[in-house]
Amino acid sequence: MWGSARSLRRSVGWIAQVLLVFVPGWAEAREDRMVRTPAEYEQALDRSRPGDRIVLANGEWRDFQVLFNAEGEDGRPITLTAQTPGAVILTGQSNLRMAGRHLVVSNLVFRDGWSPTGEVVSFRQNRQNRAVNSRVTGIVIDGFSKPDRSESDNWVAMYGFGNRFDHSHLIGKTNAGTTLVVVRDEEQGLENRHLIDHNWFGPRPPLGSNGGETLRIGTSHDSESSSFTTVTANWFERTNGEVEIISNKSGQNTYRGNVFFEAEGALTLRHGDGAVVEDNVFIGNGRPNTGGIRVINRNNTVRNNYMEGLRGEGFASALTILYGVPNSPLNRYVQVQNAVIENNTLVDVAEVALGEGMDTERSAPPIDSRFARNLIVNRDGSDPVRMTGDLGGIAFEGNVVSAHATILPGAESRTVALSRGRGGLMVPQGVDGIGARRDLAFVGRNAVGVSWYPKDAERAALDSGQTIAVAAEEDALTLAARTAAPGDRLVLAAGDHVVNAVLAVETPLTVEGPSDGEARILFSRPTLFEIGRHGSLKLANLSISGAEAPDAAGNAVVRAGSDAFGYRLELSGVRVSDLTVNRAFDLIAAEPGSLASRIVLSAVTAEGLTGSVLRASAETRDLGTYNAEVVEVTGSTFRRIAGPAIDLYRGGTDESTFGPRLTVSGTTFQGVGQGGAVPAAIRLIGVQRAELTANRFTESGPVRFERRVGAPVLIWRDNQADADPFLFSNVEAQ
Amino acid sequence: MWGSARSLRRSVGWIAQVLLVFVPGWAEAREDRMVRTPAEYEQALDRSRPGDRIVLANGEWRDFQVLFNAEGEDGRPITLTAQTPGAVILTGQSNLRMAGRHLVVSNLVFRDGWSPTGEVVSFRQNRQNRAVNSRVTGIVIDGFSKPDRSESDNWVAMYGFGNRFDHSHLIGKTNAGTTLVVVRDEEQGLENRHLIDHNWFGPRPPLGSNGGETLRIGTSHDSESSSFTTVTANWFERTNGEVEIISNKSGQNTYRGNVFFEAEGALTLRHGDGAVVEDNVFIGNGRPNTGGIRVINRNNTVRNNYMEGLRGEGFASALTILYGVPNSPLNRYVQVQNAVIENNTLVDVAEVALGEGMDTERSAPPIDSRFARNLIVNRDGSDPVRMTGDLGGIAFEGNVVSAHATILPGAESRTVALSRGRGGLMVPQGVDGIGARRDLAFVGRNAVGVSWYPKDAERAALDSGQTIAVAAEEDALTLAARTAAPGDRLVLAAGDHVVNAVLAVETPLTVEGPSDGEARILFSRPTLFEIGRHGSLKLANLSISGAEAPDAAGNAVVRAGSDAFGYRLELSGVRVSDLTVNRAFDLIAAEPGSLASRIVLSAVTAEGLTGSVLRASAETRDLGTYNAEVVEVTGSTFRRIAGPAIDLYRGGTDESTFGPRLTVSGTTFQGVGQGGAVPAAIRLIGVQRAELTANRFTESGPVRFERRVGAPVLIWRDNQADADPFLFSNVEAQ
Repeated sequence: MWGSARSLRRSVGWIAQVLLVFVPGWAEAREDRMVRTPAEYEQALDRSRPGDRIVLANGEWRDFQVLFNAEGEDGRPITLTAQTPGAVILTGQSNLRMAGRHLVVSNLVFRDGWSPTGEVVSFRQNRQNRAVNSRVTGIVIDGFSKPDRSESDNWVAMYGFGNRFDHSHLIGKTNAGTTLVVVRDEEQGLENRHLIDHNWFGPRPPLGSNGGETLRIGTSHDSESSSFTTVTANWFERTNGEVEIISNKSGQNTYRGNVFFEAEGALTLRHGDGAVVEDNVFIGNGRPNTGGIRVINRNNTVRNNYMEGLRGEGFASALTILYGVPNSPLNRYVQVQNAVIENNTLVDVAEVALGEGMDTERSAPPIDSRFARNLIVNRDGSDPVRMTGDLGGIAFEGNVVSAHATILPGAESRTVALSRGRGGLMVPQGVDGIGARRDLAFVGRNAVGVSWYPKDAERAALDSGQTIAVAAEEDALTLAARTAAPGDRLVLAAGDHVVNAVLAVETPLTVEGPSDGEARILFSRPTLFEIGRHGSLKLANLSISGAEAPDAAGNAVVRAGSDAFGYRLELSGVRVSDLTVNRAFDLIAAEPGSLASRIVLSAVTAEGLTGSVLRASAETRDLGTYNAEVVEVTGSTFRRIAGPAIDLYRGGTDESTFGPRLTVSGTTFQGVGQGGAVPAAIRLIGVQRAELTANRFTESGPVRFERRVGAPVLIWRDNQADADPFLFSNVEAQ
Repeated sequence: MWGSARSLRRSVGWIAQVLLVFVPGWAEAREDRMVRTPAEYEQALDRSRPGDRIVLANGEWRDFQVLFNAEGEDGRPITLTAQTPGAVILTGQSNLRMAGRHLVVSNLVFRDGWSPTGEVVSFRQNRQNRAVNSRVTGIVIDGFSKPDRSESDNWVAMYGFGNRFDHSHLIGKTNAGTTLVVVRDEEQGLENRHLIDHNWFGPRPPLGSNGGETLRIGTSHDSESSSFTTVTANWFERTNGEVEIISNKSGQNTYRGNVFFEAEGALTLRHGDGAVVEDNVFIGNGRPNTGGIRVINRNNTVRNNYMEGLRGEGFASALTILYGVPNSPLNRYVQVQNAVIENNTLVDVAEVALGEGMDTERSAPPIDSRFARNLIVNRDGSDPVRMTGDLGGIAFEGNVVSAHATILPGAESRTVALSRGRGGLMVPQGVDGIGARRDLAFVGRNAVGVSWYPKDAERAALDSGQTIAVAAEEDALTLAARTAAPGDRLVLAAGDHVVNAVLAVETPLTVEGPSDGEARILFSRPTLFEIGRHGSLKLANLSISGAEAPDAAGNAVVRAGSDAFGYRLELSGVRVSDLTVNRAFDLIAAEPGSLASRIVLSAVTAEGLTGSVLRASAETRDLGTYNAEVVEVTGSTFRRIAGPAIDLYRGGTDESTFGPRLTVSGTTFQGVGQGGAVPAAIRLIGVQRAELTANRFTESGPVRFERRVGAPVLIWRDNQADADPFLFSNVEAQ
C-alpha cells in the first residue's frame, strides 16, 4: 500500500495533495510523514487523517514522551512507525501513550532509560481518553527499568477494548510491576476482548518481592466480571519475576498455545471464573521452581496442556488445585468449583499438588470438579502426586500414572513408554485417549517477537574477558579495576596490594591471586569492592586484610550497593582477617534494595570479624523483600566472628517469592555469634529453604531459624555441635 | 617575578632556553608552562625544575586526577596554579595528590563532582611518597561530596611535615569524613609542625552521624606524641557536621585567633596533651547547639577566649571540663590534669559544664587544675554554670559571674555592665584583669579564604521563585512540577488534580491550594512526591487523597529518597485521607540514607492511614545515623492511623550528634497506633529531645520513649490522655 501510494503521489504531483485535502474519503489516499523532531511529530500528528502514517526518522530519540492521540477508521488506521525497524530507539525518560481509535504503532525500541510515569506503553492518554480497536505490534522494550527496583511500573498497560498487542519483545524488567497488564474498569466497559499474541516475554530475573508478574489481567476488585481476553502463541522464557508468571484476575479469558520455557512460577488462575487453559507447553528442563498451572475459582478448564521437566513444588507445581476460603473476600481465594482438568500430559515433574494450601483460613475443598484422562509419567518411577485434605469433590477418571504405586484415586498405575514426537514433545505409547493429543504442536521461538532484534543478547559473564597481570604496587589494583572491561580477570602478583579507593564493580570482574605465592589486599577505604547495578564479582586464591581500613563502624570488604540487582558473587580460596578496627565490620554487606541472584563461598577462611561473613538482612520493613536469592557455603572456616556468620532476613507474609535459599556444608564455625542481644552462629529469618550438612559448630551461638511465611524447609544433617545446636521458631509474623 | 621572567625570555629568545637547561642554579631563571590537557600537564611536570610554574589553562578540567610530584628547592618552589584564579574548575571524578618537597598549589576550584578516592586534596601520592615543606593556598572545594552520604572521605589530608594550608574555601561537605585532617604516623615522623591559617571553613550541614568533624589532628592511636601544628586566623562558619567542630587528637597543638561563627558543636581537646587555645572568638547568635571549648586530657591551656550567645549544653557547652576514665585506654577519656582555664569572657551563654559526663566509666574528676579570672555574664541574670561530681581538684580564683547567686566556688557575684568595643565584641566595665583582654581583635571574614569566590552563595529558598497557576486537569500538576524552577510556587486551581507520575523534587518547590475552594490531589503511583538530593518541599492549603494509589504495600505521599539530605519539608493546612489501599501507606516516609534538616507539620489533618504520618526510622543498623534532625508538629489532627503517627529512630551509642529533636503541641491523636507488635501513638527511640505539650490522646497507643545514648530529654506538659500515656525505657542499647 505504501509503495503504491508513493507511486501515486509521484505521478499525480500537486493534484494528489489537493485531492488529499478535499477528498479525504478517497480510499487510496494516504500520507507518509517522516518526522525528525518531537515538534515535527506534533505537526504531523495534527495533520494525520485515517490511513496516514507518521514515520519516525532513524536514530536515537531521547526523553521523548510520545502522545499518539488520533482517530483512524476501520481498515484505515493511523499508524506510527519507524523509518527502519530497530533503527528508531527511544531512550532516557521516554514513553508512549495512545488515545483514540484504529491506531497502529509498530517497530519502535525502548532502551537505555526508563519511563518517568507508571507505564512505558499505555493504551490511554489519561483517565478519560483511551485507545480502542488499536494495535501495538513489533515493539521492543529492553531493560527499560526504573533504577530503583522497589519503584513499580507496568511496561505495557492495555486499557479500552478490542486492542491487540503482538509480535513484541519484552526483556529484562528488573523493577517491580507487571511486564504487561490489562487494566479494567466499569467506565470503559469491562469486556476488553483484547488479543495478546506472538510476543516474546524474555528473561525477567526474580524481583525478590511481590509485584513481579509477567502478565496480569484485571484485579481482584472487578474479578467477578469477564474480560474475554485471549493470550495465545506467546513465549514466556525464564520469566522468573515471582511465583505468578501469569496472574489471571478476571473472567472468561483464554490461554491457548503458549510456551513456558524454563520459567519459574505458574500460570495462576488467581481470581475470576471460566478461564480456558489449553494447548500450552511448559518445558522446565529441570530448573528449580519451574511450574505449570494453579487452579482457584469456578468453572475453569485446563486441558490438553503438556508439561515436562518442571521442578516446582507447592504453589508452583506442574498442576495445583488450591483449597479455598469459605465465602472468600474478593482478594482471597475462592473455592474451586466445577474445574475440568483433563487430557494433560506431565512428564518428569516434581509435583502435582491437589488440595494445596489448606490451612485454618483456606478450609474449603475443591468441589464438583473432574480430573480425567491425564497422563503422569516420571521416568524414574516416582509419583509426583501429593494430595491434601478432602478431595471427595473431585471425580478422578481414567488417569494414568507411571508410578508403581500411585495415590491418585482410580488411576491406572503402569509403565508408559515415551518417544520424542516430531515437534520435540514426548509422545506416549499405548495409552490412547489419555494425556494431550498426539499432534499437539507449539509456536516456534522464531515466530514470536520481532525478527530484527536479538533474543540471545547476554551480559558478559565472569571470566569471559582478558587476563590482566597486576603488579604488587600501591593502587595498581585500583587502576586495573577502574579500566577493566566486562568479564576481565585481574591476576595479582604475589605481595601486598594496597587499595586507596572504593573499587566500583559495575560489570563482571574477577580478581585472582597468583599460582605461586600469596597476594594480599589491604584497603584504606570503608569498602574494598562495591557492586553496582550490572556488577558481578569473583575473588579467588587471595588474602584480604582489614588492617588498614579506617576507624569507622560498618566497614565491609564487599558491599552490594542499593542498585545491585541479580548479581553473582563468588569467593573461592579466599582468606580474610583483621576486620576488627571498629564494630560491624563485615566480609559481605548487602545494602537495602540490593538483591543477589547467587552468592557462593567455597573454601573461604574468615577469622576475626566484628560483623558478619554475610549480612543480607537489610530489608527490615517486612514488605516481602530480601537481599539474596541463593546462598551456598561449602568447605569454609569461620572463626572469631562477633555477629552471626550468615545473617539472612526475609520479612513479610506474601507468598510470591521462592527465596532466600541457603545451603551450608562442610564448614567449621568456631567462636561465632556468641555475643549481642540475640546470639546466633547463623540467623535465618523468613528463609524458605535451608540445608545444613556436615558442619561443625564449637563455642558458637545457636542456629536460629524463624518462619515468616509459607512452609519453609530446614534440613539439618550430619552436623556436630558442642552445645544445643539450633532454635526453631514457628511464630507467625505480625 | 613572573612578569620579569617573561620579559627576560622575550628579549633573550632561545638563548634563555639554553641557559635554563644548562644553568639550573641561576636564581632568576623560571619557566611558566601553560597546559591545556592532562597530557600536556604530564609533559610540563616532567620538565619542571625548581622555580618553575605549571599553569592550568582556564576552563573545566573534567575527571582530572592530578598527581603533582616534583622536587622544588627552598625559596624556589615548583608551583601548580591556574591561568586565572577561579577560572580553572576541576569537576567530575577529580582530585589532587602531591609528593616531593617545596611545592605550591594555588587558585584551583573543585566543584560539580567528587573524588574517586578517600581524599580531594592530599599531601601525599601514596604511603611512601609525601609532600613536605609544601603549601596549598587559595583552593576552593565547594560541595565536592560523594553522593552516598555514608561513604566517607577527607577533603584535605595533610601528611608529611612543615606544610601549610591557607586562604582556602571549604564549603558544603555533605558526606562523612573530616573536612580537613592531619594524618600522622611514625614513618613520616610525628612532629608535623603544619600551619593551617586564614581559611574559610564554610557551612557544613549536620551529618546525622559520627564522622562530621570539620578539622581533626591525629587519631587516638598516636595521641601521646606531639604534632606541633598551629591553627590560626581561620573562620569556622556554621560548620555543623557533628558535636566536634575541631577534634584535637595529638599533643602540643595551638589554636589561636580563630572565629567560630554560629557553629554547632565545640572545639574539643579529645586526645593528646599540652594544647594552647587562646584568643579565639565564638559567636553563637543564639542558634541551637553552638558551643565553645571542651577540655579533656593533661596540660591544656584555655585563655583569653571570647564566647557570646552560645546555646549549646552538655558536651557542647561554652566551656566543658569532662570527667575522665581512670587509666583510660587511648580511645576513651583521659582524666583532666593540670588544665589552665583563665581570662575567658563568656556573655549570654547557655551552659558552662564543669565535671560533665560523669558516669560509671568516666569516674575520674579533674585534678591539679586552675579556673581563674574568667568573666561570665548573662544579661538576663541567669547562672549558666553547672557543676557535677567532685571538683575539688580545680582551684577557682578570681572569677566573676553576673548571677545574683552563683554556684561557682569563690566567684564574685555582681552585675557587670557591658558595651560593644571597636571590634564588635562586648567589653566589660570595672572588672580589670578579669575576662579576655580588652583589645582582643579577630580576623575579618574578608581576610579568610579567597577574594575571587563568593562566601554567600545560597541555594534557592522555598517560595523564592515564580508563582505558577496550575489548572485542575489530569497531569497538569505533573507537567508543572517537572518544569518548575528552583523556589517556584505552584498554585493549584480548585478541583481534582490527578497525577500519574512520581513527582521528583530536586529543588525547592511549593505546591499550594487556591484561596477559594479546595484543590485535591490524587495520585496513581506508589509515591506522589519524591525528594532528591537538593530538594525541599512545601505543601499548603490543599487536600491529598490516596484513593487512586496502586494496590501495593509501602506507598507514601512524600518520600525522601536515599540521597535526600538537609532538606526542609513543610506541610501546612493539608488534609490527607484514604491512605488505605494496602498496608504501610505513610504520609511521609524517609528512606535509608536520607536526612531532613527540618520537618514541620502545622494544621495537618491525617485520617485513615495504614502506615504512619511520619516514618523516619529506617536506619536500623545502629551506627548512629538517623533520618530527621528536627521535627515540629503543631495544631494537627491524626485519626485512624495504624502505625505510630510519628516514628523516629536513632540507634547506636556514639555521642556525636544533636538530633533527632521533636516538638509536638496542640495535636489530637485519636485511634492511633493501637495495633501491631508494639502499640504506640508516638515511637521515639534514641531521640535526644522531645517536647510534647498540650496534646490530646484518645483510643491510642502509648507514647514510647527509649534512651539509646547520652542524656535525652523528654518534656511532657499539659497533655491529656484517656489511658496510661507513656512508657519510658532507659535500657542501654547493646
